[in-house]
Amino acid sequence: MSAINIALLGMGTVGTGIVKVLTNNAHSIAQKVGAPVTIKKILVKNPGKARNVTTDAKLVTDFEEILSDPDIKLVAEVMGGEVPAKDYMLAALNAGKHVVTANKDVVAKYGRELFEAAEKSHADFLFEASVGGGIPIIRPLKQCLAANKITEIMGIVNGTTNYMLTKMTNDRMDYAEVLAEAQAKGYAESDPTADVGGFDAARKIAILASIGFGARVTVNDVYIEGITNISIEDIEYAKELGFIIKLLAVAKQDDHGINVRVHPAFVSVNHPLAAVNDVFNAIFVKGDAVGETMFYGRGAGELPTASAVAADIIDVARDIRHNVSSQILCTCFDQKPIYPVSKTESPYYIRLLVEDKPGVLAAIAGAFGAQQVSLHSVIQKRKVEHSTELVLITYRVSDESIRLAMSTLLGMSIVSKVGNVIRVEAEQIS
Amino acid sequence: MSAINIALLGMGTVGTGIVKVLTNNAHSIAQKVGAPVTIKKILVKNPGKARNVTTDAKLVTDFEEILSDPDIKLVAEVMGGEVPAKDYMLAALNAGKHVVTANKDVVAKYGRELFEAAEKSHADFLFEASVGGGIPIIRPLKQCLAANKITEIMGIVNGTTNYMLTKMTNDRMDYAEVLAEAQAKGYAESDPTADVGGFDAARKIAILASIGFGARVTVNDVYIEGITNISIEDIEYAKELGFIIKLLAVAKQDDHGINVRVHPAFVSVNHPLAAVNDVFNAIFVKGDAVGETMFYGRGAGELPTASAVAADIIDVARDIRHNVSSQILCTCFDQKPIYPVSKTESPYYIRLLVEDKPGVLAAIAGAFGAQQVSLHSVIQKRKVEHSTELVLITYRVSDESIRLAMSTLLGMSIVSKVGNVIRVEAEQIS
Repeated sequence: MSAINIALLGMGTVGTGIVKVLTNNAHSIAQKVGAPVTIKKILVKNPGKARNVTTDAKLVTDFEEILSDPDIKLVAEVMGGEVPAKDYMLAALNAGKHVVTANKDVVAKYGRELFEAAEKSHADFLFEASVGGGIPIIRPLKQCLAANKITEIMGIVNGTTNYMLTKMTNDRMDYAEVLAEAQAKGYAESDPTADVGGFDAARKIAILASIGFGARVTVNDVYIEGITNISIEDIEYAKELGFIIKLLAVAKQDDHGINVRVHPAFVSVNHPLAAVNDVFNAIFVKGDAVGETMFYGRGAGELPTASAVAADIIDVARDIRHNVSSQILCTCFDQKPIYPVSKTESPYYIRLLVEDKPGVLAAIAGAFGAQQVSLHSVIQKRKVEHSTELVLITYRVSDESIRLAMSTLLGMSIVSKVGNVIRVEAEQIS
Repeated sequence: MSAINIALLGMGTVGTGIVKVLTNNAHSIAQKVGAPVTIKKILVKNPGKARNVTTDAKLVTDFEEILSDPDIKLVAEVMGGEVPAKDYMLAALNAGKHVVTANKDVVAKYGRELFEAAEKSHADFLFEASVGGGIPIIRPLKQCLAANKITEIMGIVNGTTNYMLTKMTNDRMDYAEVLAEAQAKGYAESDPTADVGGFDAARKIAILASIGFGARVTVNDVYIEGITNISIEDIEYAKELGFIIKLLAVAKQDDHGINVRVHPAFVSVNHPLAAVNDVFNAIFVKGDAVGETMFYGRGAGELPTASAVAADIIDVARDIRHNVSSQILCTCFDQKPIYPVSKTESPYYIRLLVEDKPGVLAAIAGAFGAQQVSLHSVIQKRKVEHSTELVLITYRVSDESIRLAMSTLLGMSIVSKVGNVIRVEAEQIS
């Protein structure tokens, strides 16, 4: 069987990884596809640049050379960014070429447009690598869990922040220190906002929620809080209470609709997500039939991401061999209401600095009670000059009620400071 | 689009679950397939039996009624056992019907024959539920990780033994006590041999190894040790040393070939498999590109297993809609040597009862040294009358060397008993 020719857009970290994977495992890949898979052309900025991999592919600087090549049936986009990646993908699909991509930004923002183009051209559009790096999650959600009504997706989907929180937890380093270290190691960018601000995670949970719930969720539907306010005190109190602080990307579905959010959360040490450390990612999925399930692995990096892109390439190549395509395209069949974060409910951890005098606890409990916030536990912690640090865990309560209670508290003279307010999300299962 | 008609063979726990799942989520399943999926007939022993689910399907007692029905394109086998399940599947495939099954026994033993029949008839043959219950693992291995050379698969794939070991670990119950409890709860059969003897896990790892390594591995290739010799002392010593004892199904591939085995193992508390408790299953997979990845969930039960079978049904139904089939059949392309357990290597935990007198430790260390077994650590534990319990952890060593060393030790008058010998398998990652 003659080779299936593909092109790569980009030869950075992931592109190089794909060249390595398709070369190293060429024999088994050819057997799985039923034909060899050959990279014919790679779009690069600078063909003369020294690279740590050799390839027989022609390095080209003009996308037209790929678009107009009828031998190239599949384009793998691994250049990143929105421009010109999205336009290139759209042009390739419109030209009847199959497209696979690792680009979460484009999938989260322009997924619908790309799916429509794919459908019109009877082409495949796959994006396993856009969430969770090498972890199989898109295809499992679209196929293996297809018989379920998915009610909950909770992910640790940003390696940078998970590395930082793990360091803070295990080595008692504070936020600024660990950010500097992560930047020095290349785990965090010089402008770390996309990671620490929760925006990267928000794009990924928008993609997962869209697939899991069968309804389009965009990044604008996601409530976002980052980890910049997490202090070593919060992490220590969490430990004492049997929790670990993680940046969670959460999507839930109930009879009222969908809610999707990214925020730090207290995770029970007995929950499987609690053991996900360093740069590892994991996605916990709950369905009405399957129950609780979790997918764990490396969420980024040259070879893990290449593993996912190459899997998509193999699937498309097999489709080409069998002369079939577009079997699974957009799965956003339904429209579902997205309800605001104010209506979401969970227990909360609250850390307050209050005056150290009799009657204070009663006054605080009263202020919470007035907003129907019941306290599960109250712990008086260390004294700070004339103040005492209070750590409270509430019962399950709405975000709205917590905000009202906190604004009342802030108006009370006995409350000198709100240290932090963090949701308790992943409690123990089984 | 007219409905896709299917038949179930069996209406026990899993069959009932499938009826529920296909009924409850009929709307979304129809959208994913592009046509409704209808159970037209179900093969049962006793059509009059009271059931906790209602169905419009015709309950039949004669398989011929299904086999000869040209409307039925897909047969889902969930009756279990080898006879007559295997013959029915073979007949269905030979008649050009697609087959999905949850039957690990038949897949492990007759996989090749069924694949060949499927290929000849251009039919699909899928078996996601045969390993790990609801956990997506077969399709992820066949597709999502297809670009990898898989080097290692380690699974907790038997819920009964994991429940028992979890109870022994957390509640300090001894083996006999916990077996009785598991039997009372219905987690263990009255004859528990298949579970506690490791035979169920052996079938599952044979299936996973065949797919992961692309070479046929049968249950006869699997070295099997069960959990019947695990004592509460071993579990306590493991804890003290930072390990948890799990029944692991292990398949490894290196340049010498493949080795596949089921045995209890010391798992580092920091390894993701260590947190897999109760009846939960997990499969840890290592590939040359993806690195470490893990799949976690419920390994058995009515709805989790139905989730996996129904996913296969949806895939086949989609294939029928798109008029394509057999895209992914047998993936055992290669022949690879299986090397004997004697050549496998790992660190070992050894518990001995020895005479309590000077020079004993030197004599024992000498006996190990004579077989090139180096000791990582030796701990003298509690005294038992005139004896002392010694707990040793070796460096990485072959099974053969350990066996030789142990037989030398057993011949020494100072050694009164070998308490246990257990492999150390899943050390900390990352």
